Amino acid sequence: MSLQLLKALFYQRSARGLIYQLTKATWSEHIASRAHAKLFFCTTSSHAAASPTQPKTWGSKKQNRSVKLRAKAADFIMSNPEIEAQLAPLRERVQEQGNLVRSLKEAGAAELDVKKAVAELKARKKLLEDKELALTPSVVSFDRAKMEDLLKRRFFYDQSFAIYGGITGQYDFGPMGCALKSNILSLWRQYFALEEQMLEVDCSILTPEPVLKASGHVERFADLMVKDVKTGECFRLDHLIKQALEKLSKAKEATPALQAECEDIIIKLDGLNKQELADVLAKYSIKSPLTGNDLTEPIEFNLMFATQIGPTGLVKGFLRPETAQGIFVNFKRLLEFNQGKLPFAVAQIGNSFRNEISPRSGLIRVREFTMAEIEHFCDPTQKDHPKFGNVKDEKMTLYSACNQMDGKSATQLAIGEAVSAKLVANETLGYYMARIQQFLLAIGIKPECLRFRQHMSNEMAHYACDCWDAEILTSYGWVECVGCADRSAYDLGQHTAATGVRLVAEKRLPAPKTVEVSEIVPNKQALGKTFKKEAKTITEALAKLSLEEISRAEQELNANGQYKLILADGNTHELAKDTISVKHSSKTVHVEEFIPSVVEPSFGIGRIMYALLEHSFQCREGDDQRCYFTLPPLVAPLKCSILPLSNNAEFQPYTQKLSSSLTKAELSHKVDDSSGSIGRRYARTDEIAIPYGITVDFDTLKEPHTVTLRDRNTMKQVRVGLEQVVGVVKDLATARTSWEQVVAQYPVFEQQEATK
Amino acid sequence: MSLQLLKALFYQRSARGLIYQLTKATWSEHIASRAHAKLFFCTTSSHAAASPTQPKTWGSKKQNRSVKLRAKAADFIMSNPEIEAQLAPLRERVQEQGNLVRSLKEAGAAELDVKKAVAELKARKKLLEDKELALTPSVVSFDRAKMEDLLKRRFFYDQSFAIYGGITGQYDFGPMGCALKSNILSLWRQYFALEEQMLEVDCSILTPEPVLKASGHVERFADLMVKDVKTGECFRLDHLIKQALEKLSKAKEATPALQAECEDIIIKLDGLNKQELADVLAKYSIKSPLTGNDLTEPIEFNLMFATQIGPTGLVKGFLRPETAQGIFVNFKRLLEFNQGKLPFAVAQIGNSFRNEISPRSGLIRVREFTMAEIEHFCDPTQKDHPKFGNVKDEKMTLYSACNQMDGKSATQLAIGEAVSAKLVANETLGYYMARIQQFLLAIGIKPECLRFRQHMSNEMAHYACDCWDAEILTSYGWVECVGCADRSAYDLGQHTAATGVRLVAEKRLPAPKTVEVSEIVPNKQALGKTFKKEAKTITEALAKLSLEEISRAEQELNANGQYKLILADGNTHELAKDTISVKHSSKTVHVEEFIPSVVEPSFGIGRIMYALLEHSFQCREGDDQRCYFTLPPLVAPLKCSILPLSNNAEFQPYTQKLSSSLTKAELSHKVDDSSGSIGRRYARTDEIAIPYGITVDFDTLKEPHTVTLRDRNTMKQVRVGLEQVVGVVKDLATARTSWEQVVAQYPVFEQQEATK
Repeated sequence: MSLQLLKALFYQRSARGLIYQLTKATWSEHIASRAHAKLFFCTTSSHAAASPTQPKTWGSKKQNRSVKLRAKAADFIMSNPEIEAQLAPLRERVQEQGNLVRSLKEAGAAELDVKKAVAELKARKKLLEDKELALTPSVVSFDRAKMEDLLKRRFFYDQSFAIYGGITGQYDFGPMGCALKSNILSLWRQYFALEEQMLEVDCSILTPEPVLKASGHVERFADLMVKDVKTGECFRLDHLIKQALEKLSKAKEATPALQAECEDIIIKLDGLNKQELADVLAKYSIKSPLTGNDLTEPIEFNLMFATQIGPTGLVKGFLRPETAQGIFVNFKRLLEFNQGKLPFAVAQIGNSFRNEISPRSGLIRVREFTMAEIEHFCDPTQKDHPKFGNVKDEKMTLYSACNQMDGKSATQLAIGEAVSAKLVANETLGYYMARIQQFLLAIGIKPECLRFRQHMSNEMAHYACDCWDAEILTSYGWVECVGCADRSAYDLGQHTAATGVRLVAEKRLPAPKTVEVSEIVPNKQALGKTFKKEAKTITEALAKLSLEEISRAEQELNANGQYKLILADGNTHELAKDTISVKHSSKTVHVEEFIPSVVEPSFGIGRIMYALLEHSFQCREGDDQRCYFTLPPLVAPLKCSILPLSNNAEFQPYTQKLSSSLTKAELSHKVDDSSGSIGRRYARTDEIAIPYGITVDFDTLKEPHTVTLRDRNTMKQVRVGLEQVVGVVKDLATARTSWEQVVAQYPVFEQQEATK
Repeated sequence: MSLQLLKALFYQRSARGLIYQLTKATWSEHIASRAHAKLFFCTTSSHAAASPTQPKTWGSKKQNRSVKLRAKAADFIMSNPEIEAQLAPLRERVQEQGNLVRSLKEAGAAELDVKKAVAELKARKKLLEDKELALTPSVVSFDRAKMEDLLKRRFFYDQSFAIYGGITGQYDFGPMGCALKSNILSLWRQYFALEEQMLEVDCSILTPEPVLKASGHVERFADLMVKDVKTGECFRLDHLIKQALEKLSKAKEATPALQAECEDIIIKLDGLNKQELADVLAKYSIKSPLTGNDLTEPIEFNLMFATQIGPTGLVKGFLRPETAQGIFVNFKRLLEFNQGKLPFAVAQIGNSFRNEISPRSGLIRVREFTMAEIEHFCDPTQKDHPKFGNVKDEKMTLYSACNQMDGKSATQLAIGEAVSAKLVANETLGYYMARIQQFLLAIGIKPECLRFRQHMSNEMAHYACDCWDAEILTSYGWVECVGCADRSAYDLGQHTAATGVRLVAEKRLPAPKTVEVSEIVPNKQALGKTFKKEAKTITEALAKLSLEEISRAEQELNANGQYKLILADGNTHELAKDTISVKHSSKTVHVEEFIPSVVEPSFGIGRIMYALLEHSFQCREGDDQRCYFTLPPLVAPLKCSILPLSNNAEFQPYTQKLSSSLTKAELSHKVDDSSGSIGRRYARTDEIAIPYGITVDFDTLKEPHTVTLRDRNTMKQVRVGLEQVVGVVKDLATARTSWEQVVAQYPVFEQQEATK
């Protein structure tokens, strides 16, 4: 298949409503990658590509987008020669470009050339992935509009401040969404904080500017945008150009040459810098898509929300863009709490904020979001993990950088093998990857829709030595939901440099060693006499000199009889031989200082929740109006419903007794004693994912008192003693027993479920 | 005792370091009262009165303030005639002023006169309360500096961003503080959300301006401040004046007349408006206490953090100052989720923000804090509560508005009696007050240090019909920790007015009723002809007319043949008889719309935590360096420690096995296998409030394997089988058994605890 043909196919699909967005590879992926999902899905509707300037009302019934969700079944493809044959040329083209990138790097080519080659590589990878997805048999037909309507209708979550017109990129979680989130977080605490005995902290959201200057966010956490010169309307630059060029190339009068030109720019968009993007704007006279007005030059827009702390207006602060910095600035206290010992891990759950230029894609890209982050501090020379043995056989779908460069698919591998083969950098990183997978599967993510994608060297922050993203396949494509990076000593180093507070750990040397110490000894009297009130500043500055600087001072003193001291404020002082001297001594040291390495698993809770909702959304066979969520009992918002068969007053004492017993057993539940057939009420509880339902009926009134217990997923029912049923639900809700076991133990109740 | 003498006594104590602050009664107490604690304690040190302009470094060792904490034991005072005799004149003076306030109000006196009388009333109340506290025998001697040092040293919490110099009013919670907070919140969820089957939500923090305009925060959530004209340093105006006048009246050259004048102003400070305060500033030529520079005129400083949402800079937003508004704006969705039925309650836990001018007092007044709020929506005519019977016998310490006006003490009363006597407005309010008390006692607040203080009618927001604050006695005095208010229909009404979205509920009428309906019928053709494109606006405006307006229209049409319609934008249109007519009809209605009432319990989690830490801080008898916290196991950060007696390798397998069994049982714990005597390690675990300790010793190695289990509070130990111990700890940690029961069941282990 020729490239032209492939491109045509690609854009034909794009015209059918394919939203896609190239990965942004500016600055460090550390920050950018957490925010930018790779949107990637196919849809059968023509309305899905919402304009970036007109945020779609999410969950609108008008846009009945039915999306085919395909699991990336590498196994299926690899074992199907026909499909493999279709993919082979695409794989080849990726590999060809991968090799080019490698050779450019080896040859030390200009950065821009490498960037452009990488952009082309990514475009080719994307074609391959699209094709792979298209050829994989669809696992499930998924109707996003239908799910979103249910989520709105039963208030799992919905747009914030809707009665005031709403704000894009902000969502309120209603009772079911809030309970689901809270259950996910509580399981997260069990899986990570408790199981690994982490130190959990809770740090401030408002962060003063110097902290985020040190972390790099003030300077580099920005997207490019342009403004309508008349209305002030803002557009994210890359979105805008892509949209404009697509329109241009689809116009009737577009020549094949123009089409090729546009396509070429779109492919390379991600590699273009500010000036190049401005040139594209100018060349094609791109105007505001809303008004046709002129646009400003590209502006760098920092994505942090700014505010002032205190009344003076002088202390600038930001809402934190990630929770991690709060952990780093507390490193000394935490190390001390851990009695000075490494390794240890710190966990934090909290909200972060990003002022997205034009947020879309529901919960995937929002302005306010909950993160759960872990910073595991360890000795850089000892990255093995004592519990690695427990997880080494965990099978993972790994999409290595190498496979990405070579146009190959993700592969299945035990994490132990991956670490042995040095594919995953070290045991600690591998341990967390395996634990992330265990956690995601425990809450109900489909294993065939989960992969770990390694950052390619060009995407990775310069300080990171290895980074894998847990990506989950949704109708938006593979969405990065958890990042897992070995960040080396970067963060602690940055804050040490900015504050002068040494964020280091110590380790005992195998044997004491003798080191030479040089220090400057000030002659206080002489200094005082010469420099008066400046003497104190000078003495303090001298105490902070580095070893190199001390040796330079010694040389200068010997050569010129004086040393020129440069203060932090730029002032200089000439210090004569009578004011200072250099002293050498030797010292026996037993410990060695070092900056710990950090391994950072970082969870985007909203994205995980969204993916989980998609994965658990179902409609009953033969009745596509009866939808429900198959959320596992562990995370389901409510564990049980209590439904009296009718509003017969005799049922009430039983209903009340059951409710208080469930409360005592700490089981969240809902009593639905409204009118409506039992089947209709079951359907209502299914919609909010309640896994089990207890029905009080006329048999309950007779001795021995019994009730029916119904399973949401199978709709099967059993008859259980009134006294036993709460215990059974408790065991089911805490995964101590399974529904199959319950069915084996109790008599099945055969009465048909009436749906009307 | 004369007033002069009393005042002298008062200021003499003030000079000894009494921090006090009059209650601020500006605007609605709804908002203000949540933020402003009544600081009220006595201290034996001379350094406690930190300057408002130099926020003290909290927990500094230099300020070894030892504070005598006295429980306000009404019983003790009332039964002691000698003390009562001393208090009688003070009580009389309060009552006298209370009567004056009442009579002024009845006579419809000018607002300012009432305000001033109320300020004087408060000052007299304060004198009485101070005296009461001073005469009550001290319950415990509490050393705040010592506690704060421990909190810092073991990183319960500490100032945020300290390595960058720190920000006042912001704290990071370390591992122990975070775990304590999280356990308190989880118990809160059990006590309220689960037990009462509330709908828990999780709403956005960033809030657009119109929402907070409607709630009143944009206009009125402000404090007055002045700025140093040269340095820009800001001072909270009331603090500054008080400080300046105190200094003035204490100066050597101060005449008795000047002293009396200053004292008079200080007493009335709270009742003065902006202009009057400016006059005081001018009259006494008050300058910056730091530089002596001139000060600006008083400025209203809004306490909300402002930011911009989105890139245009046009959407102004604030960080929410309370979580409640998120619930109100979602009322329609929540009512629908509850199938349209009242009553129901909504809960929310989340962070709120207030840009305090000069935050002090540790966790009591901060810029970023966690709240847990409940909004209970009910029919205004049905405020009884189905579960009130469960709590009616709960004894409460109630400090009624009447008692406050009459100079009487708080009284002990069952909540059932209080509601019957109409002291507490209704069952729902009373039910929540009792539940709040049960919750606070469950987490470990001392019952003798808890009271419910009713807002006096002048403190209460105009829309509230009753309001009680749960106040906890700490070394800062009685601190308001939970507010519990019946807010009537205020909030929903405000948002309805601002948005036009009717936030109402419906109830079925006892019998259908026939109502007369009047409506304006537009003649579309004639309107279109006359008004062209304005016709649509006019038709819409006509549809929104109130009943009164329709009847006015009818009168005008009959009288003049035309009706003058005034549009929202101020434009008017003359509508002639041919364009509109008024139609009357009758309609049978089965339901009635109404705005629900709201009862709002609102918990300040940080303040509760702080009070709890104070109440549980202890030093071992005879060793005041060995401090610990007696936090109840339910909320203690960690439930258990595991201490091998020495670093003997044979202990390790037992230590590991215990640790993994505890993890399986979901019991947070800490293994301390560091060197150091067992006694010293116990002391370390006591410091972080670990209630139980398991020691692995040489007897553990022998069959039958046993360990010792130690209780933090009593330091007693028992010998328990290795297989049983985790179960025992689980039962203790979840309050299913008590230490006394454990001691009765297992052999006591007598070996002395070595402390060195």
